[in-house]
Amino acid sequence: MSKLYVVGIGPGEYEQMTMEAYNVLKNCDVIIGYTVYVDLVRDHFPEKEFLTTPMTKEVERCELAFEKALQGNTTAMICSGDAGVYGMSGLILEIGQKYQQVEVVVVSGVTAAISGASVLGAPLIHDFAVISLSDLLTPMEKIEKRLECAAMADFVICLYNPSSKKRHDYLKKACDIILRYASKDTVCGYVKNIGRAGEESTILTLEELKECEVDMFTTIFIGNSQTKEMNGKMVTPRGYKNV
Amino acid sequence: MSKLYVVGIGPGEYEQMTMEAYNVLKNCDVIIGYTVYVDLVRDHFPEKEFLTTPMTKEVERCELAFEKALQGNTTAMICSGDAGVYGMSGLILEIGQKYQQVEVVVVSGVTAAISGASVLGAPLIHDFAVISLSDLLTPMEKIEKRLECAAMADFVICLYNPSSKKRHDYLKKACDIILRYASKDTVCGYVKNIGRAGEESTILTLEELKECEVDMFTTIFIGNSQTKEMNGKMVTPRGYKNV
Repeated sequence: MSKLYVVGIGPGEYEQMTMEAYNVLKNCDVIIGYTVYVDLVRDHFPEKEFLTTPMTKEVERCELAFEKALQGNTTAMICSGDAGVYGMSGLILEIGQKYQQVEVVVVSGVTAAISGASVLGAPLIHDFAVISLSDLLTPMEKIEKRLECAAMADFVICLYNPSSKKRHDYLKKACDIILRYASKDTVCGYVKNIGRAGEESTILTLEELKECEVDMFTTIFIGNSQTKEMNGKMVTPRGYKNV
Repeated sequence: MSKLYVVGIGPGEYEQMTMEAYNVLKNCDVIIGYTVYVDLVRDHFPEKEFLTTPMTKEVERCELAFEKALQGNTTAMICSGDAGVYGMSGLILEIGQKYQQVEVVVVSGVTAAISGASVLGAPLIHDFAVISLSDLLTPMEKIEKRLECAAMADFVICLYNPSSKKRHDYLKKACDIILRYASKDTVCGYVKNIGRAGEESTILTLEELKECEVDMFTTIFIGNSQTKEMNGKMVTPRGYKNV
């Protein structure tokens, strides 16, 4: 049976890939992905066939992957971070219903919430919510409801896709919603270009975060009521009873 | 300056560690951890000094790690999954305020939410909340509030520590809270022993999940209103506008 692997390659640096992901890429025939991610791995596997499709051509990319697998190629579809957190494994499994002859295997990777947290310190030690601010496929009211409920329950909140050209004020809006429930002094942080050239992190208050301009390569962390700054690191305690 | 690494080793299988984690363990002098996790890596690094402390002795384990580092040993504290999701990096950074001569470096790993999701299919493709049902350090009312808010906002919910000897009915209680907002047919799944011998996964409805007996090595996934079962896999769509 032909195999199609959906592989999370981690945040960018080759070293942050799991050994399992590395072995899949080493042993496959074809590697498919969004152009930017393919470029991150290309030099490490020079003998492979590489195929790329641009952003927004996700369905076509999946079809291409299944066609390559059907032709007898062990095929790997790569995703930045994890394959399953805002990644391609869902669409592959949906489209895979048409391609029962191809076995799909999902290989995990370190998503930006996890890798960004390590850069900042330990913001996700306790319960957390992950929310994308992209309203391309999700109505804004749904996103706002999630921000509100997450803040109400005092979750640490990690925001993906905090900004784009069309959505330059979404982070400000998100902070305004969270500020209804959280203190303006809540400890927050963000990391740009996690695990890549130009990695940069900042710790700041929720009030300061609200006024920040960030780009689409930034992951945002909003602490819970107990999160503290310690020696320049963002740290959430393990629980509530001991504080 | 002495270095203390806090390293997430992934869900268990040696292969699911990142290459960065592998390199840190290969190059350090001392590896410290909870007995069960140390046993997972011991055979791969036979020449190291290993130190273990039992569960609940976390503070002592951290002090021991700093003392070893202070003595000039490159030291690695290992955690199952990720170092930062219910892991040891927070406590290490807290205690590290007393040990300014030791540099702490956090190395990410694949946490059970991510690795369990890959086993089940793609449940975490869209916004999700991670909640621990352990009330050892967190008041039960706080946990209940989070379950309620997460269900209200239609997050996919991932539950850690769903059960223990003293808490055999907590999963049932959690399902009851979620059932106030979610359909009894909500697609759910759980994975036992992720990435280890005896790995086992099940997809079922929320109503069925409520009646399940699970152990502490189980990670639970409760879908959002759009999550579906497809060919025996649990899949959450990328968004809401296209369904």
